[in-house]
Amino acid sequence: MKKKEKITIHDIAMEIGVTASTVSRALNNHPRISPATKKMVLEAAKAINYKPNRIAAALRHGKSKLIGIIVPTINRNFFSSIVRGIEEYANARDYKVMISQSYDDYRKEVETIDALLDARVDGIMVSLGKNTHSYAHFDAVLQKGIPLVFFDRTTDELTVNQVVIDDFASAYQATHHLLDQGYRHIAHFTSHMKIKIYLERLRGYSQALRDYGIPFDERLVVESNMQLDGGQESTRFLLEQGLGFDAIFSASDYAIVGALQELKKIQVKIPQEVGLIGFSNEPFTEFTEPALSTVDQKAIAMGQTSAALFFEMIADDGKPKAMVKKTLDANLIIRSSSSRIS
Amino acid sequence: MKKKEKITIHDIAMEIGVTASTVSRALNNHPRISPATKKMVLEAAKAINYKPNRIAAALRHGKSKLIGIIVPTINRNFFSSIVRGIEEYANARDYKVMISQSYDDYRKEVETIDALLDARVDGIMVSLGKNTHSYAHFDAVLQKGIPLVFFDRTTDELTVNQVVIDDFASAYQATHHLLDQGYRHIAHFTSHMKIKIYLERLRGYSQALRDYGIPFDERLVVESNMQLDGGQESTRFLLEQGLGFDAIFSASDYAIVGALQELKKIQVKIPQEVGLIGFSNEPFTEFTEPALSTVDQKAIAMGQTSAALFFEMIADDGKPKAMVKKTLDANLIIRSSSSRIS
Repeated sequence: MKKKEKITIHDIAMEIGVTASTVSRALNNHPRISPATKKMVLEAAKAINYKPNRIAAALRHGKSKLIGIIVPTINRNFFSSIVRGIEEYANARDYKVMISQSYDDYRKEVETIDALLDARVDGIMVSLGKNTHSYAHFDAVLQKGIPLVFFDRTTDELTVNQVVIDDFASAYQATHHLLDQGYRHIAHFTSHMKIKIYLERLRGYSQALRDYGIPFDERLVVESNMQLDGGQESTRFLLEQGLGFDAIFSASDYAIVGALQELKKIQVKIPQEVGLIGFSNEPFTEFTEPALSTVDQKAIAMGQTSAALFFEMIADDGKPKAMVKKTLDANLIIRSSSSRIS
Repeated sequence: MKKKEKITIHDIAMEIGVTASTVSRALNNHPRISPATKKMVLEAAKAINYKPNRIAAALRHGKSKLIGIIVPTINRNFFSSIVRGIEEYANARDYKVMISQSYDDYRKEVETIDALLDARVDGIMVSLGKNTHSYAHFDAVLQKGIPLVFFDRTTDELTVNQVVIDDFASAYQATHHLLDQGYRHIAHFTSHMKIKIYLERLRGYSQALRDYGIPFDERLVVESNMQLDGGQESTRFLLEQGLGFDAIFSASDYAIVGALQELKKIQVKIPQEVGLIGFSNEPFTEFTEPALSTVDQKAIAMGQTSAALFFEMIADDGKPKAMVKKTLDANLIIRSSSSRIS
């Protein structure tokens, strides 16, 4: 089956007997072209299935209808679900997305911003890498008036629209649930990277303790890489210190699985002796035994809200009136690992 | 901190006292420009940190140093690990990758190919969507001489370089292991989509039975969507039919978790009464109880091999001499769910 050659504006011009320049101006809604001609051109373009070259069009008009997304890694249900939310919203409006990973590497994040600008994307959405502490690479994006949205891992150092979840409230709620279940010596697993989401979760944890009249004990706050091995190490550390904890609220699902594995090794009963709660609602939290309580960050909604912000910005010619910060509520999912009172 | 304006070829021209046109031709290795001038321009360009606009350069020379990757979904450890393998290999050679998802939607795959061509990528790597049964959208890629590589979900209907794992041998090995463990009534979970990887796994399963002298019973082969719910339904179906199975080899990890959940509900002992093996080595297979045996598809290696094929092709000006098909060995990971003989 031979494929037809690419249809150009010359084909449309031939079809209706006008010049290619008239077709081009009509397609670009030029004021000099009459509404009647525009209508005729658009109908002919549709009839012969004309598809403008996106990048050529982008060079002329700055409209590639492409959105570039940068996430630390796609290998997390949370981030891939946000991307899905963005994509569903954008596709419905005839925009496509391209995804890049920074792998939490500052240099890679900087280079990816350059590559996206070169690719003439119409918008950029970023969840910052853990090691990103300087933001000069976003200056070029802002100077060019390209809509920029931060989600989840954000900074207040730039005036950029952002979508976050209420990490403080989620952590407060999770810790409060453990207190309600009768746990009193609650450890907290946090990242050694002092980025905002972890600081907010730590704040929610300590505030819940304070409101319950339980003194904050910093020895129960253990830092790690928040991966499986980090959770295992943090648990061994707590056990070796003999601190007598009876629950762990972890700012990461991976680290809480590590804790679960270590505790099961020494026959600690979950949730009777130690209660566990993770963070992110990764799919595997349902499959462990016992199933793990966790915080659902409503990633799809976060993606949709981020995309909606982008479309609001392009409706305003890319110039937001002021920084918009949307905070979404998260949702505590209570499963067996923290339920010892029925 | 104010960022410097973008450096252009005019800055280089000013710097060394030649015209912008000379700089441009020197940078593009034009034969009319003397080696001495070329050297001077390149040194000046390096000294003032000149970065050519990738897309503008791509329009002139077809070198964007961008590779477009299309996967059905990033939300699978297998695919995100392949992407990681491609990316590590490509980044080390100063190429960047952009990822798109087809969500197994044929139309979306077609549109994404268009978008990648418009974005002037230097190469395209694709794992085909489950619903892709027509391949005309790849004609334009092949006609333009843009290196194209298929991985994992491939077709032999096009002459395209491809990287696959030996699905037949992996399935044979998994089934053989169950037979060695004394299981004799082994069910197989497969996809209702008749794509090659599933057909090969089915073939490996039935060949292993045949070689062991056990008749193939098609009632034990159950089709589903291969998701968690599909595995649950297939298991209930087997139980309702009263077919007396004592093991399941599933072509998907998600479906085998569904089986595990259903069987545990009715107190079937794993692996004593029923042995289970999945496929893909998704991270959660380690976290279930018992941990699930599965097939490790060596996704990182698949990504690296795919990228290596691409770089071989560009070294050949994008024209491969003949179709290259690389088949990688997979690796059976034996965990508790299929180990009843110690």
